[in-house]
Amino acid sequence: MTDSPTHIAGDWGTTHLRLHLCRGATVLDKVDGAGIGSLTVSAEATLFGALDPWARKYGALPIWLAGMVGSRNGWREVPYAACPAGAAELRSALLRFDARGHSIAIAAGVSCTNPLGAPDVMRGEETQILGAIATHPALGRGRNILALPGTHTKWALVEDGKLKSFQTSLSGELYALLRDRSTLLKASAVESNEEAERRGFAAGLQRSLEMRNVPLSHLLFEVRARQLIEGMTHAEASTYLSGLIIGQDVLGALPWFDGTLRASTAVPIIGAPKLAELYAAALAAHGIETVPLDATELTIAGLNALAHADIAE
Amino acid sequence: MTDSPTHIAGDWGTTHLRLHLCRGATVLDKVDGAGIGSLTVSAEATLFGALDPWARKYGALPIWLAGMVGSRNGWREVPYAACPAGAAELRSALLRFDARGHSIAIAAGVSCTNPLGAPDVMRGEETQILGAIATHPALGRGRNILALPGTHTKWALVEDGKLKSFQTSLSGELYALLRDRSTLLKASAVESNEEAERRGFAAGLQRSLEMRNVPLSHLLFEVRARQLIEGMTHAEASTYLSGLIIGQDVLGALPWFDGTLRASTAVPIIGAPKLAELYAAALAAHGIETVPLDATELTIAGLNALAHADIAE
Repeated sequence: MTDSPTHIAGDWGTTHLRLHLCRGATVLDKVDGAGIGSLTVSAEATLFGALDPWARKYGALPIWLAGMVGSRNGWREVPYAACPAGAAELRSALLRFDARGHSIAIAAGVSCTNPLGAPDVMRGEETQILGAIATHPALGRGRNILALPGTHTKWALVEDGKLKSFQTSLSGELYALLRDRSTLLKASAVESNEEAERRGFAAGLQRSLEMRNVPLSHLLFEVRARQLIEGMTHAEASTYLSGLIIGQDVLGALPWFDGTLRASTAVPIIGAPKLAELYAAALAAHGIETVPLDATELTIAGLNALAHADIAE
Repeated sequence: MTDSPTHIAGDWGTTHLRLHLCRGATVLDKVDGAGIGSLTVSAEATLFGALDPWARKYGALPIWLAGMVGSRNGWREVPYAACPAGAAELRSALLRFDARGHSIAIAAGVSCTNPLGAPDVMRGEETQILGAIATHPALGRGRNILALPGTHTKWALVEDGKLKSFQTSLSGELYALLRDRSTLLKASAVESNEEAERRGFAAGLQRSLEMRNVPLSHLLFEVRARQLIEGMTHAEASTYLSGLIIGQDVLGALPWFDGTLRASTAVPIIGAPKLAELYAAALAAHGIETVPLDATELTIAGLNALAHADIAE
């Protein structure tokens, strides 16, 4: 039977479980479930509840999972693999066990000492990066920088096909906290206005560039003062805040980029499409070209790369 | 009757109402009430409820108020006075009216274009600054910088006895959001440990100095990673976060200080005693001497300075 599935590939982060029924690299079906941060029953019960229709139809299938499922608060903790980490290292670091007749593999996160000399960690992004290398052979050669914007934005250096180092910026979480819970913006006044949002982001980005050595805390209050004094609208102020934060995030990553790279390579941006666009704009302000890649597709490809010796097509 | 009160002086901010029954500069009694941000009845009812025992005993007394009581969401909005603002300018900007037989005066906030070229505002701190000038004659001469750490830290420049300019840093609010609501620290694990807290703050402060051109977002995730990888305790991590933020706050204020000032003048720090100590340590790291001043006393003195022609002793 040519369309029978070979395995289940899952991206299980803090906010979502996204399961894909696969035949090799082809997705046959998909289903979503609760993220690790919002489980109402155990992780195991959540997983098998979500995939029950597939199990009834196809029986026990190998299940490959990446993300916070392997964290201390996930299903089973998988120790971090160390950088440099390529396919071979990540394969050795997999946690494998059986549950309810299915063979389970959970991808390890990765730790490193980042370029600032601090410890750093990721869980989930390593599988996306592996997927990017597997599906874009150019990323397997030489020195490449990847941007993975999100709650905890990761800037990753891939050298000769291995994740060599990375650095985390808290930009997404910082933005959400300041937008939703600070005195900078009144949550009541939310009105969508695309033109104002574009203008606000551009102004915030520009401001972060002009004030590049000014600490963020000294720029944030502007978001409030400009509404009070200059009549900046809520829509504009919220994206001004985003522009300030993303602008500074990119400034912090600039030391990663050198002349050669800028001239020759488009930087892959792996993240939600709208967010990827904002990072593309912020990188473009420094003359850095980018190309957006789909995070979910890369997770599936990354799990495939981890599994390739195991899954018969 | 020599101990009869002359007026009531009140500091009415977002979180607290602090009323003082005064005879000139002497406080005879005090009472607290709800802040502007947590009113359960109207501002007027809150105020007169709190001071009712005094009104019954002494009749109608002039009431002088400073802080968020004069904001858009306060009792009555008082337009901002513009910098430079000294006692005369702040006196002209007072909002005066009668309520329930009492004469009321609410101090104006102050606005300026800050040294970074952005609009900036304060409400309440201007009265503390005026009180500091009134009670410390040296601050009325030449050029003086004052630090007012808090939810929205203010760095103020006083020149020839007038508030010339100021700059706001969101450090206090940022710290509270990241400590209580982010993924950096687990709120469950709170255990007080003074030694660890001291060590954490010193390490965070040191880190902010070593990484002085690195945007905050790129340093924040360390708070989490150091707990995961280096076994940093919760107590240490929470003050490490504080050290990073206060360290950057002070770095952002450094352009205000010049050689002359550093050599000759102790910088007044007006704020909660524990917070003032942390700012003193962060400024000491740059060779800047400081002297703590009591914010409540300064508010009373500032209102006295505003009222002096009005209140017969």
